[in-house]
Amino acid sequence: MKFNIALLAGDGIGPEVIEQAVKVSDAVAEKFGHEITWKPALTGAAAIDAVGEPYPDETHEICASSDAVLFGAIGHPKFDNDPTAPVRPEQGLLKMRKKLGLFANVRPTFVFPSLLDKSPLKKERIEGTDLVFFRELTSGVYFGEKGRKDDGNTAYDTNMYTKEEITRLARKGFEAAMQRSKKLCCVDKANVMETSRLWRETVQGMEKEYPEVEVSYEFVDAVAMRLVQWPKDYDVLITENLFGDVLTDEASVISGSMGLMPSASLGTSISLFEPIHGSYPQAAGKNIANPMATVLSAAMMFENFGLLEEGKVIREAVNKALAEGIVTEDLAEGGKAYGTKEVGDWLAKNI
Amino acid sequence: MKFNIALLAGDGIGPEVIEQAVKVSDAVAEKFGHEITWKPALTGAAAIDAVGEPYPDETHEICASSDAVLFGAIGHPKFDNDPTAPVRPEQGLLKMRKKLGLFANVRPTFVFPSLLDKSPLKKERIEGTDLVFFRELTSGVYFGEKGRKDDGNTAYDTNMYTKEEITRLARKGFEAAMQRSKKLCCVDKANVMETSRLWRETVQGMEKEYPEVEVSYEFVDAVAMRLVQWPKDYDVLITENLFGDVLTDEASVISGSMGLMPSASLGTSISLFEPIHGSYPQAAGKNIANPMATVLSAAMMFENFGLLEEGKVIREAVNKALAEGIVTEDLAEGGKAYGTKEVGDWLAKNI
Ligand SMILES: CC(C)[C@H](C(=O)O)[C@@H](O)C(=O)O
Ligand SMILES: CC(C)[C@H](C(=O)O)[C@@H](O)C(=O)O
Repeated sequence: MKFNIALLAGDGIGPEVIEQAVKVSDAVAEKFGHEITWKPALTGAAAIDAVGEPYPDETHEICASSDAVLFGAIGHPKFDNDPTAPVRPEQGLLKMRKKLGLFANVRPTFVFPSLLDKSPLKKERIEGTDLVFFRELTSGVYFGEKGRKDDGNTAYDTNMYTKEEITRLARKGFEAAMQRSKKLCCVDKANVMETSRLWRETVQGMEKEYPEVEVSYEFVDAVAMRLVQWPKDYDVLITENLFGDVLTDEASVISGSMGLMPSASLGTSISLFEPIHGSYPQAAGKNIANPMATVLSAAMMFENFGLLEEGKVIREAVNKALAEGIVTEDLAEGGKAYGTKEVGDWLAKNI
Repeated sequence: MKFNIALLAGDGIGPEVIEQAVKVSDAVAEKFGHEITWKPALTGAAAIDAVGEPYPDETHEICASSDAVLFGAIGHPKFDNDPTAPVRPEQGLLKMRKKLGLFANVRPTFVFPSLLDKSPLKKERIEGTDLVFFRELTSGVYFGEKGRKDDGNTAYDTNMYTKEEITRLARKGFEAAMQRSKKLCCVDKANVMETSRLWRETVQGMEKEYPEVEVSYEFVDAVAMRLVQWPKDYDVLITENLFGDVLTDEASVISGSMGLMPSASLGTSISLFEPIHGSYPQAAGKNIANPMATVLSAAMMFENFGLLEEGKVIREAVNKALAEGIVTEDLAEGGKAYGTKEVGDWLAKNI
């Protein structure tokens, strides 16, 4: 197969980790006879510096005309703690999500047996955890009407959802549940919010299409508790944008392997793949960042193209690297620490 | 001193745990020469069954004319998973909060050294945790305009905050910080929400009134992570209603002592005290529920009246009971389990 992949390296450690994912993907392409054309484009603080805009039109055109987007990380300290600055990297992120129609953010949380000790949670609580969130990403309070009244002394945000938006997100969740253990949890706050009541009604209405899937409905506050208490109780979870923002970040802590967690954002025609970690500016340019989450994001990309074998060889290479201690300093535990580039080289060689 | 205390036992285990708190409070009153008149009133499912309303006007009048409210728990399985039922216990809760003006929900999370092993988190992560949330309780998306459009196919909720609402909540947080370690964290989502930007601006504007307090601003998703990773990093946290709902429940898991955590909801003229646990209907009437959270809520009530010594003797009695194993089955760990009533009797005797 032939692919065009937009390559949005972004800020901080983004360029370094992306470089390794490209290396590994190229090795996979060679092994399986695919051809990947990488299309680099500017985003984040890097784009603001270059053209004054975090998601320039040119970048959008490159993304929209590609088969997928591989994304590094965005964010720079000079924009931190100034959420009122006129131009900020996150705005680019939101604009990109909306313009590319990336409506389903897929965030798996799973454990690597060799890394269980890194979790803040006790081993017996997390062993075997394997859950995945489907977070709605292009609606809700992120994109609803917001503003000020009374000379700026009153502020408001509107959370809004349509049945269609809920249905297409929920369908992704039901489909994933069918491939997994047929358990789906819809997370809402239906005892307080009207949008949540529409979520619940809509998902209830879809249950008959998936008679094998056992659906539960839980309140967001209860899930915030139970995720830490009994993460193994969950399998597929679906939720709205803001709840998903909070819960997927909370869940990412469970495994103790945050630096390894990939994600996908699925759209109707194009999808994006990125590590869940941030741009980690303190580590930028030092060849110390862990590239594995980005490499695993590339695995998700192949799998999303239906190329399951290609995804599998990447996952196997990562597992082998972990087992053999070919890891960056965050995982080295007193053993030898490899550089970002060296880990990438090793993975590419082991494809 | 003389007090009238409205007594809202509520549902499930509510009446049993409330009974013990009354016993202990009466022992305290006797010891210190106070006089408490208890004013029982209906709430929750119990009130719906009796008068068709979860927070009847009569109950409100009793609360409004008392010096404080001691609250058990509400909720009944027959209302579960039916957030669209016309009358539900939670509606009574929200109505009560609004009508009594209980704008600041105070939720401490601290650890009992003897119970550290009960936490899902590793001991070294939680040892010494002592944080307190101030959650805004009478505004935000809970009380904003909500509804449907497009024949019910679109739903919306409005989150709204005024500067005054933010200021009075934040002031409670700053004052608590002054009494504690002078660290305050304002939790928001100012990179996305206009209400959050108003929160941040308002709190920033108050910093000069409390020059000794070191204020940090963190995004709700980051706090959801860091609370589990490094709970000891936090001291006083302030936040809006919905974020507070999720984060205080998440935080309650940290200590492993959820059954022991009290809370207060402060109003301008009247305040309410209640355990954070639910009505636990499966345990109702069995004399097995742990009354300590409710007893500690009574301690917060005395402290809120400025009666610090009275609060302290209650806390000491609870600590002594824990040390001597005078505990209900949830904490018995294979040792002897005492009944709800027996623990209450023991605590009252040890005042
Ligand atoms: C940067 C921010 C706007 C963004 C969000 O809230 O969606 C981030 O937290 C995320 O989850 O990707
Ligand atoms: C029952 C529900 C409406 C309530 C809330 O969301 O405030 C509860 O979760 C709480 O935190 O007291």
